[in-house]
Amino acid sequence: MEILMKTNFYMPVKVLFEDNCIANHQDIFADFGKKALIVTGRNSAKQNGSEADVIDALTSQNIQYIIFDKIMSNPTVNVVYEGSMIARDNNCDFIISIGGGSPMDAGKAIALLARQDIPMSSIFSGGFDDDALPMIHIPTTAGTGSEVTPYAILTNDIGQTKTSISSPCLFPKVALCDPKYMSQLSITVTINTALDALSHSMEGMISKRSSQMSNILATQGIRTLASCYDVLLDAVKNGSEIDMDTRSKLLYASTLGGMVISHTGTTAVHAMGYGLTYFKNVDHGLANGLLLGEFAKFTAKTDSLNIIHILAAMKLADCNELCDWISSLIAVKPTVTEDEIKTFASIAIKSKSINYCPVKPTESDLIDMYTKSLF
Amino acid sequence: MEILMKTNFYMPVKVLFEDNCIANHQDIFADFGKKALIVTGRNSAKQNGSEADVIDALTSQNIQYIIFDKIMSNPTVNVVYEGSMIARDNNCDFIISIGGGSPMDAGKAIALLARQDIPMSSIFSGGFDDDALPMIHIPTTAGTGSEVTPYAILTNDIGQTKTSISSPCLFPKVALCDPKYMSQLSITVTINTALDALSHSMEGMISKRSSQMSNILATQGIRTLASCYDVLLDAVKNGSEIDMDTRSKLLYASTLGGMVISHTGTTAVHAMGYGLTYFKNVDHGLANGLLLGEFAKFTAKTDSLNIIHILAAMKLADCNELCDWISSLIAVKPTVTEDEIKTFASIAIKSKSINYCPVKPTESDLIDMYTKSLF
Repeated sequence: MEILMKTNFYMPVKVLFEDNCIANHQDIFADFGKKALIVTGRNSAKQNGSEADVIDALTSQNIQYIIFDKIMSNPTVNVVYEGSMIARDNNCDFIISIGGGSPMDAGKAIALLARQDIPMSSIFSGGFDDDALPMIHIPTTAGTGSEVTPYAILTNDIGQTKTSISSPCLFPKVALCDPKYMSQLSITVTINTALDALSHSMEGMISKRSSQMSNILATQGIRTLASCYDVLLDAVKNGSEIDMDTRSKLLYASTLGGMVISHTGTTAVHAMGYGLTYFKNVDHGLANGLLLGEFAKFTAKTDSLNIIHILAAMKLADCNELCDWISSLIAVKPTVTEDEIKTFASIAIKSKSINYCPVKPTESDLIDMYTKSLF
Repeated sequence: MEILMKTNFYMPVKVLFEDNCIANHQDIFADFGKKALIVTGRNSAKQNGSEADVIDALTSQNIQYIIFDKIMSNPTVNVVYEGSMIARDNNCDFIISIGGGSPMDAGKAIALLARQDIPMSSIFSGGFDDDALPMIHIPTTAGTGSEVTPYAILTNDIGQTKTSISSPCLFPKVALCDPKYMSQLSITVTINTALDALSHSMEGMISKRSSQMSNILATQGIRTLASCYDVLLDAVKNGSEIDMDTRSKLLYASTLGGMVISHTGTTAVHAMGYGLTYFKNVDHGLANGLLLGEFAKFTAKTDSLNIIHILAAMKLADCNELCDWISSLIAVKPTVTEDEIKTFASIAIKSKSINYCPVKPTESDLIDMYTKSLF
């Protein structure tokens, strides 16, 4: 009996990707109700113009709004419960999340908690009903892809890591993608988020859950990122500006990466990266970038086919070139001790994502990957 | 000012593509309600086992069902109104469409008419509310891609053509794709439907409405079809059997093609093909296949870039090789007169799809393409 193709696809988010996206699609907000909760961080949505564009759109459609702009990096469980109470108390019809991964993920959790009574102690336990306030997401960084995923990643202080909550009801209804909100992002944020997007497409291709459909998207995401390399390297080395065409490609690759992990989830890279973020405050994308090359090497030892496809999409000869490619974009590595690495590995090994590696690493393998990546 | 990327994506259908798909996902039917209307043709769903698999699934979930198996090729407006009355009279909660493009498209129109009061005289006028009975689609041919489109194409006797009705509410909720239902398809049906799928991906790439996202899917669809060529040619020349791996690829390419035209619509090939189908009863896929090569030549004269990408995906050198590729799979051409061609062209030129050609053909261009294709 032949083994036939098995590939699933589910991506219910309406993605609108264009210059002046919000202004061009003001009428879409009216489909969502009469009162919105805008979920965002303290500053960036004000600085990059996205919050003003949203307010213009809401005003034009006679939609009331409340701004909840308290979302910090690596959002806490407390802040999403606080936001959900505001949504409930004000009878908000829908959520508009503006920002990078933190506000976009927090907005999803708020949308969930505004509709369902979930005790704080079981927020990471899953098994939710398929019900949340409808959401519009507006990314202002190009890395997380949260605008097209059913995941919200929150800080888990009991597990001492970041933990993903997942439900089909966490897919936004609409993603409004406009690279202009990224024009002023620092080089460091641009690189770190690009490494996050690369990690999503690469892990998706490596994952045991990869399929033909997810691999089409992942390959295109990886190719698109690779096509940005010269501009990114010039920015890192010489501080030169990142042009809007490259910004557009980076956002496109990030959205593709989100579509990929919506189907595949992540693997050991994210599992390991969360420890660096939780304990050492290393930016999420940088954490993934630091670990990606060694994970590719580890995988290639026994299961090289997908790695070969990834290297081909990047026009690289081998995993050493991949490690060099990534390293050339990273300015500073975090300082960690051997004991810290043991702690990180002992937590990462418990992550569900580890199971999706084609070769399941042991705790000792994780320590080895951390060590080679960080020393 | 640079012109930045503009790409939209909306594909809300949950696609489950695997061997024994219906049996593996019986529980999904229970999400749709307690009573189903099964919309299908007279024979094929009984012969290929798909109807029995659906009935097993419904029985296992204690779901009642009514079978409406009167859908003919190129379904009429009358038959979909008849089906919608049965759905209404029996309070059906959802529609299950099993078949090729005809039952799948008819099922969508029935789902629409079961929920909305639309006079027969305005069924082709559009402007419907966003409301239809929820649908599960099960393709049993690999060509139309209807399981992932928001289109239903019906015979339009007033317009003397086939006309598409289109609404976001015509997207099925779920597509259950299993190549085993195609194992007994004749070589002719297999080829004709494959040519339809090729036409969708090719027209989508050529269309003015093509985008990065649709082109990713179209390229993969074309590559996948090209990879089936040797098997198809062997079947045409020597009557050899088409293996299940090839069947699986053909279905995958068909679904990709459907995703493409959901974003781009079709172009002059479909507009011209409908005349051959309406007046000469030429199978829809064959009609497209006959016209595809000359349309590529016509387009390449002034806008060759997308044609180059298509030829590269098929590993062909030029449009003449494309014409040979298609011709080698077609056994019989229909007989038409010059006067008939003039009639077809005078109707095709009124089609909306003509406007999406990068170089808009004149009526005389259409006559020229028909003539070169059919004589």
